[in-house]
Amino acid sequence: MKGARKTFSSGRKGLPVVLERRPYNAETPMDTIATSDITANRSFYVRNHFSIPKVDPSRWRLKVSGDVERPLRLSLPSIMRMRTKTVVTTMECAGNGRSKMNPRPPGTPWLTGALGTASWTGVPLKQVLAKAGVKDSAVEVLFRGADSGFIGGRITRFERSLPVDEAMDENVTLAFRMNGRPLPMSHGYPVRLNVPGWYGMASVKWLDEVSLISEPFEGRFQSSSYVYSKRDGTPSIPVTRMRVKSLITTPSEEAKVKCRSPVSVSGLAWSGYGKVERVEVKFSDSRWRRAKLVGQDLGRFCWRRWLCRWIPDKPGRYTISSRAVDDTGGSQPEAEVFDELGYGYNTVTRISVRAV
Amino acid sequence: MKGARKTFSSGRKGLPVVLERRPYNAETPMDTIATSDITANRSFYVRNHFSIPKVDPSRWRLKVSGDVERPLRLSLPSIMRMRTKTVVTTMECAGNGRSKMNPRPPGTPWLTGALGTASWTGVPLKQVLAKAGVKDSAVEVLFRGADSGFIGGRITRFERSLPVDEAMDENVTLAFRMNGRPLPMSHGYPVRLNVPGWYGMASVKWLDEVSLISEPFEGRFQSSSYVYSKRDGTPSIPVTRMRVKSLITTPSEEAKVKCRSPVSVSGLAWSGYGKVERVEVKFSDSRWRRAKLVGQDLGRFCWRRWLCRWIPDKPGRYTISSRAVDDTGGSQPEAEVFDELGYGYNTVTRISVRAV
Repeated sequence: MKGARKTFSSGRKGLPVVLERRPYNAETPMDTIATSDITANRSFYVRNHFSIPKVDPSRWRLKVSGDVERPLRLSLPSIMRMRTKTVVTTMECAGNGRSKMNPRPPGTPWLTGALGTASWTGVPLKQVLAKAGVKDSAVEVLFRGADSGFIGGRITRFERSLPVDEAMDENVTLAFRMNGRPLPMSHGYPVRLNVPGWYGMASVKWLDEVSLISEPFEGRFQSSSYVYSKRDGTPSIPVTRMRVKSLITTPSEEAKVKCRSPVSVSGLAWSGYGKVERVEVKFSDSRWRRAKLVGQDLGRFCWRRWLCRWIPDKPGRYTISSRAVDDTGGSQPEAEVFDELGYGYNTVTRISVRAV
Repeated sequence: MKGARKTFSSGRKGLPVVLERRPYNAETPMDTIATSDITANRSFYVRNHFSIPKVDPSRWRLKVSGDVERPLRLSLPSIMRMRTKTVVTTMECAGNGRSKMNPRPPGTPWLTGALGTASWTGVPLKQVLAKAGVKDSAVEVLFRGADSGFIGGRITRFERSLPVDEAMDENVTLAFRMNGRPLPMSHGYPVRLNVPGWYGMASVKWLDEVSLISEPFEGRFQSSSYVYSKRDGTPSIPVTRMRVKSLITTPSEEAKVKCRSPVSVSGLAWSGYGKVERVEVKFSDSRWRRAKLVGQDLGRFCWRRWLCRWIPDKPGRYTISSRAVDDTGGSQPEAEVFDELGYGYNTVTRISVRAV
């Protein structure tokens, strides 16, 4: 696997690590994650299900349809003229970390870099829904991307839904800017949804239709994929918010560190359920120690950097473990967790280093 | 002036409005400010005193000298390996708004766009100072940029100082990333200072020396320029933090608005002294009304967007005024303020529109 990665990676700093060419899927490079709290647009991981659709922005309209009083067709300029909101958001692919599961599940073999943080500027969806007038019969909001392809011999679009009350959250936006720039093609130009706190699949790209529906949506990307499934007949559970998780960025996996010298151990922690309250770190079989939360607090939808100092007292191999706790009390499970489809991996984070 | 601007501006969206070519000085375009809470690197205003110096990053060292226990020479990689911090910061040139003063003072004729917000990632200066060990004799920290040029027949470098305790603030950083990307050349590559809350001149670009000094610094950019001066013999007062201020971004100056229809009036507000607590808006001679603070709160060093709805009741010309109040109680003065050198302009913000 490491060899395959090397082949695909351009080797140039800050460029994504390409996992698949068709559809294009690429991770944020680890050195970017280790050093930047905001991920530059060109470094930000890309998760596509199909090829990138061609959208002509002058002809593009966002259709608002279904159980509404006034169906709408909004041009890009008319959306950009509305009241906007910027939300700095950490986004993680639900399959991030899948490569660490044993046995490895099917799907794009994400390591740890299907993860990034950007500022997304757009119009709160609730503003648009208020304009359209949501009927009482509506139970969910269905989001349709312009991207589609063959699955099982049928043309399938990328479609996802949210319950009406989740969709009405002030922070759910129709985003058209990323880090102050127009949304890049690979991130859903001209408009994508941004659902802070949820795994990335909820933030539908190349959005062209928002439809109010009176029955829960059961489409491909909500029933066959993006579900925690036991495959034993018990009902599957939809993948929604990002589970609390941490990442060790420094030292890197398999790094050599100096004995009897202080080593800076640092990383990031985030959760889609609540604010990260603390991060604990363990060195091989030591007791859990509390790390320091450092850097600016970019708000409740963002990762937070943490740091602790460690002095390895004798040469040899060490396992560094980290676990984050959010303010809903959630934490990372100690035992390796397997999921049939490889979602929601958040087992206690562990890397191996060698002290010399 | 407007004609001259048009000649210099490229006319392409998102590109800076060039005011001067040598040295290069350019404003953030108003449509970028009106629509983005984070200013993209390529749109961000540039304030230079001299031409951009050539820096070879492999040979560049940050010297830490003067009243320290251990003088340092730090390479770029060694700085990048230290604990970093990201601070989202609104930066404003002390001369922003100078063109509105009457009579117009000398200096670059900034209108309202010498202003932008970015996330700056770097190493807290206090970490580096701790490494060097500051002697008790030090009273100020002097920052030297690599940029220099002839002033009055003498080669002069851009140099500024900060009192030691201001410099020790955890948010004062040696920044090497801007919005997740390496610092652009025109913003001080490889390393610049970021002093949140202060006018931009404090955030020295192309930094190559940090020197602890035992007497207050009296250099060119701290005594002849960047001072509020009465020119009547009374001592001048140094320009430091950004005065509380607001900006009306929508509608634009001289816009036509519709009578008896709701008009969205919005803008930004910031202060280097404290958090913006409220913004008030007035339409011609109406009473002051409180605007709504909208969008994400990006923290105490950042501008905040505000919004209010207005229904002009009859045709004609209206003056829209706005004033911000910060949590230290500071607000914008009602009467036009003049400054000999054109600094710190923050008179109540006014634009003129026509209702039809």
